[in-house]
Amino acid sequence: MSTNHDDQLSHPSECHHDSGHGYLDHKEEYLRRLKRIEGQARGLQRMVDEEQYCIDILTQVSAMTKALEALALAMLDEHLSHCVVRAARVGGAEAELKLAEASAAIARLVRS
Amino acid sequence: MSTNHDDQLSHPSECHHDSGHGYLDHKEEYLRRLKRIEGQARGLQRMVDEEQYCIDILTQVSAMTKALEALALAMLDEHLSHCVVRAARVGGAEAELKLAEASAAIARLVRS
Amino acid sequence: MSTNHDDQLSHPSECHHDSGHGYLDHKEEYLRRLKRIEGQARGLQRMVDEEQYCIDILTQVSAMTKALEALALAMLDEHLSHCVVRAARVGGAEAELKLAEASAAIARLVRS
Amino acid sequence: MSTNHDDQLSHPSECHHDSGHGYLDHKEEYLRRLKRIEGQARGLQRMVDEEQYCIDILTQVSAMTKALEALALAMLDEHLSHCVVRAARVGGAEAELKLAEASAAIARLVRS
Repeated sequence: MSTNHDDQLSHPSECHHDSGHGYLDHKEEYLRRLKRIEGQARGLQRMVDEEQYCIDILTQVSAMTKALEALALAMLDEHLSHCVVRAARVGGAEAELKLAEASAAIARLVRS
Repeated sequence: MSTNHDDQLSHPSECHHDSGHGYLDHKEEYLRRLKRIEGQARGLQRMVDEEQYCIDILTQVSAMTKALEALALAMLDEHLSHCVVRAARVGGAEAELKLAEASAAIARLVRS
Repeated sequence: MSTNHDDQLSHPSECHHDSGHGYLDHKEEYLRRLKRIEGQARGLQRMVDEEQYCIDILTQVSAMTKALEALALAMLDEHLSHCVVRAARVGGAEAELKLAEASAAIARLVRS
Repeated sequence: MSTNHDDQLSHPSECHHDSGHGYLDHKEEYLRRLKRIEGQARGLQRMVDEEQYCIDILTQVSAMTKALEALALAMLDEHLSHCVVRAARVGGAEAELKLAEASAAIARLVRS
């Protein structure tokens, strides 16, 4: 494993703000997407409250699941290209940890 | 196909309130679950806003996806045992339509 | 629950051959699709054996998963429109059982 | 981006055998797992041929899908910790390419 440290990264193991979470470049976009997803959850409550047809409700649940899934994939993407790449360069236990975390997150996504 | 009509069902084809959407027996429970899911969407916004660690955010997204999926399965379940069963007894085009709708909803769930 | 029995169905509870599994109308087609899926499994062994690139192997695994999923959806579809519809007309415990079985199968598909 | 090249890697961009596909350390295990999956495909053909109950067939299809999914996750894991880590250290276009490929493979898995 390489031991080339990047001096700018004081706490690479935590992928801190100062070292940059991947998603922070697009923080506003993520907040917007989550706000829209929150709106979908409220829309579903209105549909149930108005006793709309089950199949129409299920269609909206699938749309909301897809929106969450797309958000998770975008966030994972940025996590890989920022935190995991940084850890890979640092190498050693740090890289092992980040890879194990990313793999577990991918497995949760695939299975959910 | 059977043509035994159930006289209580004036508009079985629409699975109307009077003929009973499956989920209406548990309307309050569905509203509670959706409220909790809406809370999860707000919790995720707070996590992004506080710039929490991406992997922790992804874990919450997976939990939220699972909650949505469980809700969809419960709703589909009741749809099958109410609307689809009723349509199956009516038979004919009505049954065909309900089955095609249910199959499409299942496919969307499996693929989302 | 209705108790209108269909005299043609001697053992509707088992959805026997004589009463017709849904998929039997398309038995040859299912066998062809499964043969193709078996071929995909063999193709993957050849790719691993020839030490092909992991991403290309993963692409083939996804294609195979999609083929299996499509086969499961088609089979479930026919199960609903044959066995479940028949049980719905019989009603009672038989209908309950078939619905519970179908719901469990749908949940396994959604989660796998 | 780092430009520290690892001299041992003559063609890191292809993640060649000599530079080591991640999965090659476990080539025999992958072949065994794929052989078992091929056996499941044959078992399913026998079930259809013997006209077994649809729900039992669907249960086996779900088991086979899960086996494929677990294999894909294991292979992706090794790809990330070998090819992607290596590319991350090389940096530049190579790292970009490997990350884009991995992200696309993850998205296909999540959606299949």
